[in-house]
Amino acid sequence: MKRMVKDVAEAIQARLMGEPTVEVSGIASIRSASAGSLVFVDDEKNLHSALASPAAAVIAGEFAATAQSSKPLLISAQPKLAFARAARLLAAGHPHSSAIHTSAIIHSSARLGVGVSLGEGVVIAEDAEIGDGTSIGANSVIGASVKIGRSCEIYSNVTIYPHTSLGNLVIVHAGAVLGSDGFGYVRDEASGRYEKFPQVGRLEIGDEVEIGANATVDRGALDVTRIGRGTKIDNLVHIGHNVQIGEDVVIAAQTGLSGSAIVENNVIIGGQVGIGEQGHLQEGTILGGQSGILPKKVLRGKGVVFWGTPARPISEYLKQLAVLSRLAKQSKPKE
Amino acid sequence: MKRMVKDVAEAIQARLMGEPTVEVSGIASIRSASAGSLVFVDDEKNLHSALASPAAAVIAGEFAATAQSSKPLLISAQPKLAFARAARLLAAGHPHSSAIHTSAIIHSSARLGVGVSLGEGVVIAEDAEIGDGTSIGANSVIGASVKIGRSCEIYSNVTIYPHTSLGNLVIVHAGAVLGSDGFGYVRDEASGRYEKFPQVGRLEIGDEVEIGANATVDRGALDVTRIGRGTKIDNLVHIGHNVQIGEDVVIAAQTGLSGSAIVENNVIIGGQVGIGEQGHLQEGTILGGQSGILPKKVLRGKGVVFWGTPARPISEYLKQLAVLSRLAKQSKPKE
Amino acid sequence: MKRMVKDVAEAIQARLMGEPTVEVSGIASIRSASAGSLVFVDDEKNLHSALASPAAAVIAGEFAATAQSSKPLLISAQPKLAFARAARLLAAGHPHSSAIHTSAIIHSSARLGVGVSLGEGVVIAEDAEIGDGTSIGANSVIGASVKIGRSCEIYSNVTIYPHTSLGNLVIVHAGAVLGSDGFGYVRDEASGRYEKFPQVGRLEIGDEVEIGANATVDRGALDVTRIGRGTKIDNLVHIGHNVQIGEDVVIAAQTGLSGSAIVENNVIIGGQVGIGEQGHLQEGTILGGQSGILPKKVLRGKGVVFWGTPARPISEYLKQLAVLSRLAKQSKPKE
Repeated sequence: MKRMVKDVAEAIQARLMGEPTVEVSGIASIRSASAGSLVFVDDEKNLHSALASPAAAVIAGEFAATAQSSKPLLISAQPKLAFARAARLLAAGHPHSSAIHTSAIIHSSARLGVGVSLGEGVVIAEDAEIGDGTSIGANSVIGASVKIGRSCEIYSNVTIYPHTSLGNLVIVHAGAVLGSDGFGYVRDEASGRYEKFPQVGRLEIGDEVEIGANATVDRGALDVTRIGRGTKIDNLVHIGHNVQIGEDVVIAAQTGLSGSAIVENNVIIGGQVGIGEQGHLQEGTILGGQSGILPKKVLRGKGVVFWGTPARPISEYLKQLAVLSRLAKQSKPKE
Repeated sequence: MKRMVKDVAEAIQARLMGEPTVEVSGIASIRSASAGSLVFVDDEKNLHSALASPAAAVIAGEFAATAQSSKPLLISAQPKLAFARAARLLAAGHPHSSAIHTSAIIHSSARLGVGVSLGEGVVIAEDAEIGDGTSIGANSVIGASVKIGRSCEIYSNVTIYPHTSLGNLVIVHAGAVLGSDGFGYVRDEASGRYEKFPQVGRLEIGDEVEIGANATVDRGALDVTRIGRGTKIDNLVHIGHNVQIGEDVVIAAQTGLSGSAIVENNVIIGGQVGIGEQGHLQEGTILGGQSGILPKKVLRGKGVVFWGTPARPISEYLKQLAVLSRLAKQSKPKE
Repeated sequence: MKRMVKDVAEAIQARLMGEPTVEVSGIASIRSASAGSLVFVDDEKNLHSALASPAAAVIAGEFAATAQSSKPLLISAQPKLAFARAARLLAAGHPHSSAIHTSAIIHSSARLGVGVSLGEGVVIAEDAEIGDGTSIGANSVIGASVKIGRSCEIYSNVTIYPHTSLGNLVIVHAGAVLGSDGFGYVRDEASGRYEKFPQVGRLEIGDEVEIGANATVDRGALDVTRIGRGTKIDNLVHIGHNVQIGEDVVIAAQTGLSGSAIVENNVIIGGQVGIGEQGHLQEGTILGGQSGILPKKVLRGKGVVFWGTPARPISEYLKQLAVLSRLAKQSKPKE
């Protein structure tokens, strides 16, 4: 939907420099910009190419305030954030259709809110509740007594096990599995065989959580697995049973959290990290990619970066790598 | 289903102390117990909180035999195992419905046993066989000539490729893919292009195997990939073509086994472990999380724990980590 | 379909030795060969068992030219490649049916080529285009404006997000997700909350690409994620937004590529490798399993093998491992 830059600037609280009535119709990268595009620059070295692009207008940091520009500039202290918000504003003209496809199969006891959209072949089991404005993609399966809040976006081929609850504004990408049984067995000492430990708990996901494609999140064994508000989980991440994740946590792709791990607010976890059972990441800790945290280990320190397996403070780890490299260079070749 | 503790004690072969006619209606953790709950304690330090909880009865080890308790105690040498069995007993009152949803699409040549349950949108292809009492979740796809035993539980959005066979009492979680093509190509030296090597073998899965959500198991290239009885596989695990896995093996989440790997009985593999082509884990070996086993490497020793990449005995690896840490501390800071 | 060995030899450009009218009906491994099987040997030490097997004929290297054999031999400079091609020839007698199942749901604006096959419950959204001879497995979901070329094989429960394009002869295994949103957020410095950065780019996949089961490939944020012709991607691989992958690249299972990584032609990547944001693998580099490449790191050298985290030339890494092992053995035990 087309909007005048003065309206965009007002909505995103940016300071407008230049012609207020120029119209923008969508966002783009500098490279792919065309007439009507709104682009952004958060690094001064890219300002020139933004101004030279066909874009209609540019969101930029304070550094651009003195630039010569024939295009309107929207000056913001956080230009990337301002751009993300402008993108939402410009996309708002393309609302979801709120249709329920005739092939969706909805149990008579399920409750659907206003403006719910269900794709082809969607299954909604008994006693499930779907909030207002939530959209569910084709062939997704929503189990019995699942509760999904309002304005959620569930993509296709997602499976949500019974009794799972999702807050509002949750996004779940295709193929994700929520609320599956945890990995728990008891070995019979007599027979040597494993018997399944009951996996009958639940999974609770807070507001504004996003879960990536083909990620898996297990329900609690007897209690509850929890993911706090605003936490973002990438593709193919595994979350084990009884895990407790706080708010505003970021977990990159293919990371795995073993059972009963605890991740406090504002933790940042890189890709392919492994966290052992009951591993505990305290508030604001940061883990480098492929790190490994031993079972029951506690990592602490806001903003402290850990790396390696077992994870240690990154400065320590880098020093160890440097020492090892030096020793190998000094050692006489024997081959 | 409610049961008297004397009946539970008898079924799980526990020694009952206290009032035999107290009724329990379900299992719970100590934390979430309510009136009617059956809980367990396998560590003496938790006995007090179990006894102080609202639970109706407590399964505990021999250590509890002398405790003062107003609740019935079910004393067992393996309290966690006894609890798991009690959970099954108490859940048995909630049988699966054995309905075949009208939207399931079943090829006329497929054979369904007695008491089979098929969810919405399930597809059963030609010549497939589904055993008595097996349940298949919504939108799962069972390929041609697949054979599934009795009392299996296949969750939603599972795909089973043609000719795969599953034993009895197998559990397959949502999104898992069984019997897909292995990763095999031949590079044409002339063109430099990869051509697909035939992936036309099969996958055979034994009785009582459990496979986690979004796990993938490839069929053999020309021969058979096999997973033995009682083996438990966690979420997002990858099993390559021609892999041979024995009985009672445990494989934690996100581990990957390359083509033709061999895993003997009673092996325990942590999460995010990588096993190279034809890597071979002999009976009873144990691998720490994130370990890496080189192609063709053989690891041996019942109960021996290996860790690191390349995997080595854990005592050796820990010593190496300690030495490196000491050297780094001794080295003069140069930054 | 049965064929005479002289016809097979001609088709795969092998030199025939022995009776030209012997018939073969299918391929097999030496171990599983039966009468009518065609087998291959690329290592001279297996020649004897091939000749002693029940197989009807043997594809072998030049080393077999002087062997005594009662079976026809098809001599090829690349016997494994010749075998792969013979497999395709013999399978050609079993064509796909090109039926569109009545339960498939096809938007009226979608365009289907000649000989398209759609399984049960397949969803084809508006403006999608499916090329001639392409087959799509049951319950897969093809988003709006997706373009799929000719002779592709899309297995079951696959999700393709809107605007993704696939070339010709592409194979996508079950459960794969193509074109999902990348993992991009902007943190508002004021609130500490993450807001979604727009993920509105596209995904383009070239001809003859194969993508494994439950793999995930994200679309570009603002631009395009690209996978070049002939590239082969294994199960559970993650490809982030804006990644650029060249031609004839091989990526083994569970490897993850962070956003904006660049992988040039003919690169070979082992399993469980992690590549940081903007990591760059130049043409022909080779990465050992579980390697980690730091963000923005460039690796170069055709045929050079890298290993470890951070990835370094393998000879260097092995020397470091050896030095560390030696030091640990020399150090006095203190425990």
